[in-house]
Order: sequence, then structure tokens, then C-alpha cells
Amino acid sequence: MSPHPISAPGPASGSHGGGEAALSTPYVHHHRLRVRYAETDQMGRAHHANHIVYMEEGRTRMMADLGLPYDEVERRGIGLVVRAVDVRYRDAALYDEELLVCTWVRTVRGASVEIAYDIRRAKDDTSVATGSTQLACVDLTREPAAVIPLPRDLFDLFDAARLGRVIPPG
Amino acid sequence: MSPHPISAPGPASGSHGGGEAALSTPYVHHHRLRVRYAETDQMGRAHHANHIVYMEEGRTRMMADLGLPYDEVERRGIGLVVRAVDVRYRDAALYDEELLVCTWVRTVRGASVEIAYDIRRAKDDTSVATGSTQLACVDLTREPAAVIPLPRDLFDLFDAARLGRVIPPG
Amino acid sequence: MSPHPISAPGPASGSHGGGEAALSTPYVHHHRLRVRYAETDQMGRAHHANHIVYMEEGRTRMMADLGLPYDEVERRGIGLVVRAVDVRYRDAALYDEELLVCTWVRTVRGASVEIAYDIRRAKDDTSVATGSTQLACVDLTREPAAVIPLPRDLFDLFDAARLGRVIPPG
Amino acid sequence: MSPHPISAPGPASGSHGGGEAALSTPYVHHHRLRVRYAETDQMGRAHHANHIVYMEEGRTRMMADLGLPYDEVERRGIGLVVRAVDVRYRDAALYDEELLVCTWVRTVRGASVEIAYDIRRAKDDTSVATGSTQLACVDLTREPAAVIPLPRDLFDLFDAARLGRVIPPG
Repeated sequence: MSPHPISAPGPASGSHGGGEAALSTPYVHHHRLRVRYAETDQMGRAHHANHIVYMEEGRTRMMADLGLPYDEVERRGIGLVVRAVDVRYRDAALYDEELLVCTWVRTVRGASVEIAYDIRRAKDDTSVATGSTQLACVDLTREPAAVIPLPRDLFDLFDAARLGRVIPPG
Repeated sequence: MSPHPISAPGPASGSHGGGEAALSTPYVHHHRLRVRYAETDQMGRAHHANHIVYMEEGRTRMMADLGLPYDEVERRGIGLVVRAVDVRYRDAALYDEELLVCTWVRTVRGASVEIAYDIRRAKDDTSVATGSTQLACVDLTREPAAVIPLPRDLFDLFDAARLGRVIPPG
Repeated sequence: MSPHPISAPGPASGSHGGGEAALSTPYVHHHRLRVRYAETDQMGRAHHANHIVYMEEGRTRMMADLGLPYDEVERRGIGLVVRAVDVRYRDAALYDEELLVCTWVRTVRGASVEIAYDIRRAKDDTSVATGSTQLACVDLTREPAAVIPLPRDLFDLFDAARLGRVIPPG
Repeated sequence: MSPHPISAPGPASGSHGGGEAALSTPYVHHHRLRVRYAETDQMGRAHHANHIVYMEEGRTRMMADLGLPYDEVERRGIGLVVRAVDVRYRDAALYDEELLVCTWVRTVRGASVEIAYDIRRAKDDTSVATGSTQLACVDLTREPAAVIPLPRDLFDLFDAARLGRVIPPG
């Protein structure tokens, strides 16, 4: 399986931390959505806070499509909490434009995972924004939530996605 | 104590359901906020879904100012769930405009309360939107949340506000 | 063409204002979406302001599917401004649940249109919320926007939908 | 004038790019807001997309308090478009908690400005999130909006704030 080359900018060299990884290509998940009217601002474009939500939607769709919906994870008392986010805005996304959210796993660590995104305009395949999120695994049953190692199945799912070793949905 | 006449359109005749109420004027709470850039849409005004949030902010500020913050209510396992909302939009609210959210209690029943709102533009005291919400009292510790009678202190607080028998904050 | 009976509660008797209309059934548009994580609140359900956005999404999808996308309308300098909204919440919509937004035209007047909605949970076809919006047609090129009659094509599209005389998409 | 030491983490060493700057301390603007119920998510905290909006609110309040409200800038046909944003989340912000948004100018260039933020919990002065935004100056009267040099008054305002040479409001 190979990701669509257009939407797979790929991890920066060495980010996988291993020789094996250097040869692998991550699985890239694709999710389509449309810019809602409520998401536009008076500059006539999707307000930049919405891209954070688009990225989250891409991430949770990826998890569901790979067989581990995030709501099931939370029901087990485990949460993935966003610790950091960065976005680089490249072009305006307009009302009703269809966007393609490309999502892939960049790095998996013991208790955290870094997910990367490329939000592209569907009609001309132009990148609207790229970004990443750092997620920490937490025990939601403790107050306050404590960081814990990723459960085996979550770790394996993210690592397989990172290495491109997943069976894509559909 | 009398509410500010400008922002107290008052309950519709008979809505209190009693002779006493017909003579009373509700306490009207005032809360100021500004339209955020993220809340505007490409028509150059606050998108109409935000007025629902402004009304909620007015309602929770009123409860806090009357001595019973809503977060304390939830910590007791009790929730006020919105069952119905209606809004009539009267004028555009623009970015950075200061709004005055006027909030008052219209009707209190055994297990529900109706709150009314008048969102006014501060600079010219023009009504931007009026509306109301029906809230049901629920037991959050049950799954799914079950409707329960309003606890005594909540009922009394809302009823005193409805009758104008509260000590206004500040 | 007949709308899906499940999702077509139908206009209230007499709302069409004519004998002909009393015999007709409106076209009911269906749009699917999922509750986003960002849309949940700490009560663990979609916050009630989001249903306003879901209704708007249903409305604009209906217009696009009937051949007149709302962004084209705005490019002609014409806007449909929400003058009133009401929602009755019937059940909680949870994170990641798929919702079916059923949208139909209830009333068409010279310069306004009333759209009705039934937001249903896809998996068990339970109504999550019902509501309606009153939209006024405005000239966006004037400042402030002035109410104008619905252009012929918009009036005809809404009226055909109201009478069930449209060719459904797909 | 000196900023409040608590909320002035200060720019990283050398980020001003000059010897003069190394001796200066930026003006730090303070803005208070409360986490809205609609902003919480089912994890019981302010959803991470809202911090972007809090930062924007801090930035526009700073501009208004320094004498150049952003809506006036847009009325002149000039926009400040967000090109990049990064946020590091440090602690959960809960419903109704009062937050102190500390905002300061980190770097000013010919056609862009970098603003930094520290969002702190008011009651215990703990940092909830830190971040920054890169803003490009654009000509809104052109389609698409073209990058232009910062007008003199905007450049001077940001540069004075960066160097701590402003008369704080109030």
C-alpha cells in the first residue's frame, strides 16, 4: 500500500529515529469536509481556529477507519490530550469549498504520538494549511488526568500507520 | 429594587400565572461582552449561532452573581439542560461591538425554568436579538440524565429573580 | 417523488395557506454529518448551539443539491439572513454519532422563507432536535442590507421544494 | 513602564535581533475572560481550539487599548492575516475559570509581526497555555489579498510595544 503521493509530504528525514523508518512511507488517511458558513469570518474565509477542528476531525476519522474509534478509547478511561499544536496557513479556504484533510502519524513514543496534517482544497489540490499535533495519553479515571503509556493496541495502531503497514479502509 | 427600564421589556402579560406576579417586575441581570472576530461570518456580522452562546453566558453570569454559580450546581450532580431555544434577530451585531446581555427569569415550574434575554448594542441601546430558553432540571448522576424537581435553593433563586426580590450584585 | 416518511413530519395543517398545498408533501432533503469532538460540552453531548449550525448545513446542502448553491446567491449580491430560529431539543447527540439532518421548506413569502428541520440520530432514527428558521432576502450591496423580494429563481426553487415538485439529487 | 513580572515570560534571548532590544522588555497587555460552557468539551475542559480564539481576543484588545482598534485597520482596507500559529497546552482550563491572557509583541518585520501569548489561570497564576501567531499585513482591497508593508502607524505601534515604549491604558 502506498499513500497518495500528492497528499503525503512525508515525515522530515530522520523523524522516525531509525534506519527502517527511513525506508518506510506512512499511511495517509483522507477525509473530505466542506467549510461551513458559520466557520467563515468577515474576511470571507474559514477563520483560522477552525483548521484545528478540521485536523481533529481528520485524526478521529483516521482512528475510526483503522478500527479503533476514539470514543471507544475514552470509554476505556483513556484519553489522548492535545499538548501542542502548530499550523501554517498557506491559502484561504472559502465557504462551501470541499477540503481534503490528509492525516498521518509522524512519531510514536511511549506515552505520546505526533500526528501531521495537510489540509488541501479538493478542486485544485492546493494546500490550504499544514500542521501537527502532539497528543499525550492520559488516564481519565484519575483526577487530574495522569500521563500513562499508550495501551498496546493504540501504540500498535499508530506505529503501523506510521510505517504504512495498515490495511486502508474501504 | 427595580430593573433598568431600558432593558426590561418585561414578561408577557399573564406569563407568571398569578395575580401577584402581574404586579411584580423581574430582576434583570446585565452582562457586557464584545463580539469576537472568530464569531463574525462572511456577511460581516456575528453569526446567528453565537447569540445562543451569548444568552448562555448571560444566564450563567446571572446565576453566579445571584450566589449560585452553575459549576457548583453541576458539582452537586444536577444539570440544567436546554430543552428549547428561540431567538428573534433584530439587528446585526458587528465585530468588536460591545453588547449588553439582559437576562431575566420568566417562568419557574417544578422541574424547569424559562429564561428570557434581550441582547442590546451598548453604544445606542438598540436591541440586536431577543429570545428565551427552556431549561429542564436533570440528575446528572443517572445515565441517561433523568428529569428531577428543581432543588429548593435553585427554585427559590429563580423564583426570587422572577419576582424581582433579589439583592442585585455589586 | 415522495419524501422519506420517517423524516417528513410534514408542515402543520394550513401552513401552506392554500388548498393545493394541503394536498402536497414537501421535498425533504437529507444530509448526514457526525458530531465533532469540539462540539461536545462537559455534559458529554453536542452543545445546543451546534444544532443551529447543523440546520444551516442542512439548508445550504439542500440549496446546492437543488441546483442553487448559496455561495452563488451571495455572489449575485443577494443574502438570506436569519431573522428567527427556534429549536426543540429532544435527545442528546453524542460525540461521533452520525446525524441525519432532514430539511424542508415550510412557507415561502414574497421576501422570506421558512425552513423546517428534523435532526435525527442515524443509527436508531430517533429525533434529536426539531426546529425552524425564518430567512429574509436582503440586498447585500446596500449598507445596511435592505430587505428585497426573493429573486424569481430562488422563489421558484423554494416553492417547488415546498410542494414536493423537485427532482431530488442523485 | 514595566510589565507585570509574573506575566512577562519575555522573549527568548536574541529574538529581537539587536543589542538595544536585548536590554528592553516588551509591553505586556493583560486581558481577562472566562471559559464559556459552550467552549468545554466532554473531557470537561476548554477545548484546545478555543485557546486560538482567546489569543486573538488578547491581540485585538491590546491593539484597541494601544489606540489602534483592529476594526479601524480593516476599514482602511488593511488586514492582518494569521500565517502561522503554535500553542503549547500546559494545564486544563475549566468552565467558568477566569483566565488572564498576556499578550506581547515578539518581532516586527516589514510586512509581518509575531505576537506571543501566555494564557494564565487568574486564581493561581498558573500558565494554561503559551503560544504565538505570525501575522502578515495584506491589502484587503485586492483579490486575492496581497501582502504589503505594515503601514507606518501599525509598524510604530507594534515596535513601540515590542520595546516597552508605550503608555499602558487605564
